Amino acid sequence: MSSKGRSPLILTALERIPLVQQGNDLAEILLHTLKDNKIDLIDGDVLVIAQKIISKAEGRKIDLNTITPSKRAEDLGEETGKDPREVELILRESTEVLRVRPGLIIVEHHRGFVCANAGIDHSNVPAEGGRDQDFVLLLPENPDKSAQELRRKVEEAEGVQIGVVINDSHGRAWRNGTVGISIGFSGLPGIVDLRGKPDLFDYQLRITQIAAVDELAGAASLLMGQADEGLPVVHVRGFPYPLRDGSFQELPREHSKDLFR
Amino acid sequence: MSSKGRSPLILTALERIPLVQQGNDLAEILLHTLKDNKIDLIDGDVLVIAQKIISKAEGRKIDLNTITPSKRAEDLGEETGKDPREVELILRESTEVLRVRPGLIIVEHHRGFVCANAGIDHSNVPAEGGRDQDFVLLLPENPDKSAQELRRKVEEAEGVQIGVVINDSHGRAWRNGTVGISIGFSGLPGIVDLRGKPDLFDYQLRITQIAAVDELAGAASLLMGQADEGLPVVHVRGFPYPLRDGSFQELPREHSKDLFR
Repeated sequence: MSSKGRSPLILTALERIPLVQQGNDLAEILLHTLKDNKIDLIDGDVLVIAQKIISKAEGRKIDLNTITPSKRAEDLGEETGKDPREVELILRESTEVLRVRPGLIIVEHHRGFVCANAGIDHSNVPAEGGRDQDFVLLLPENPDKSAQELRRKVEEAEGVQIGVVINDSHGRAWRNGTVGISIGFSGLPGIVDLRGKPDLFDYQLRITQIAAVDELAGAASLLMGQADEGLPVVHVRGFPYPLRDGSFQELPREHSKDLFR
Repeated sequence: MSSKGRSPLILTALERIPLVQQGNDLAEILLHTLKDNKIDLIDGDVLVIAQKIISKAEGRKIDLNTITPSKRAEDLGEETGKDPREVELILRESTEVLRVRPGLIIVEHHRGFVCANAGIDHSNVPAEGGRDQDFVLLLPENPDKSAQELRRKVEEAEGVQIGVVINDSHGRAWRNGTVGISIGFSGLPGIVDLRGKPDLFDYQLRITQIAAVDELAGAASLLMGQADEGLPVVHVRGFPYPLRDGSFQELPREHSKDLFR
């Protein structure tokens, strides 16, 4: 990676992305917006996309008035002070509840990542008939697949080989603040494995699996800034590792190696 | 942040940084290397620096033959299969042991972050008399202070206002691979607090504290790549938030809010 690592990494948030609605063809929107931003994709570029616009395009906006909470959701709603209908959705989106506190349910999402409230989002869900707080937005059903489809369409239209990352903002166990991480991606490595490479002094490297996709997701998140919908797509040039097939399934730590469950 | 957020974020790994040794004046090395790389600092730039070269300059390389392990270190050494002298250093650098497994001691470092093996590093510690594996490198004693001193010297020499971030690669509780995070910094926000700002639809944002310094540390880490000493400094232009005083003390989660200790 020596020569590639010395190229600059350039991240550009795309401007003038229209508000995304259910059923929109996101690939079309991306292609149009890239042109509007005078960005010509080249091989090795990566597009990082906020989960929110994927979820909206895929119709993951849910009217809580259509949800009937289970007994367990009612109980957890009482324990946490959260709307039992929202708790019901959190439980449906999850495989395991790790911790419960007022306002907070930490789960393993069915896609394999641990996060607060199954990533279900209240903000930026447009009002409809003045009942905006009754709507929530679930994460995309299968972010890897969403990334793969977007990538295929953009690659076919532009004749390039790129990566697509879907990111979200998650908290961490021991640190304040959220960082952008990936919840699904296609066309680039999730983990870059440098095990076995000698370092400068021929001592075998030990910490040698780099979560490159998460580092990139966080970098893009810096430019997306607050969770608004204004800057949900970031174009990346100079990702320093070779593109390859990749899947979120590289990321979740095996339960047998998880010390904090 | 709207207008600033639309500027590209450009990260450039500096080339031709000499190997750093104890007692080196890192600010001098940085200033020289920036010139050699034809980078003129401007207000708002940030330098991200791998902890390893800070530690080396500060003489944090320890000969394990000078360390006498305590009884507790002997016991933990047996339990983990780690060198009891290294365990002794891990314990001295820490305030609390959270988890112990073969090869792994997860601690709260005395600077307030949770990490594996107190961040003590075996790799890239140059051999001396063929006993290279007897040397380890501790993290800088006070990374915030190291960052502050570097920042002051560079700012005075160049007449600019910049940020300085010291980064390291850490694992995460539930995800494979390491990501770059900050262990100390100066001159930029650790957490950017967007609480209270309405989002696009005037719904109050809820997840609104962004660990901007960690997102930047991870972005730079992508270019530093493997843990070698070849690319330990990354120049950042276009950090999208206003610079201000900042300290690592913004980052550690209060113990009372920690659900995973």
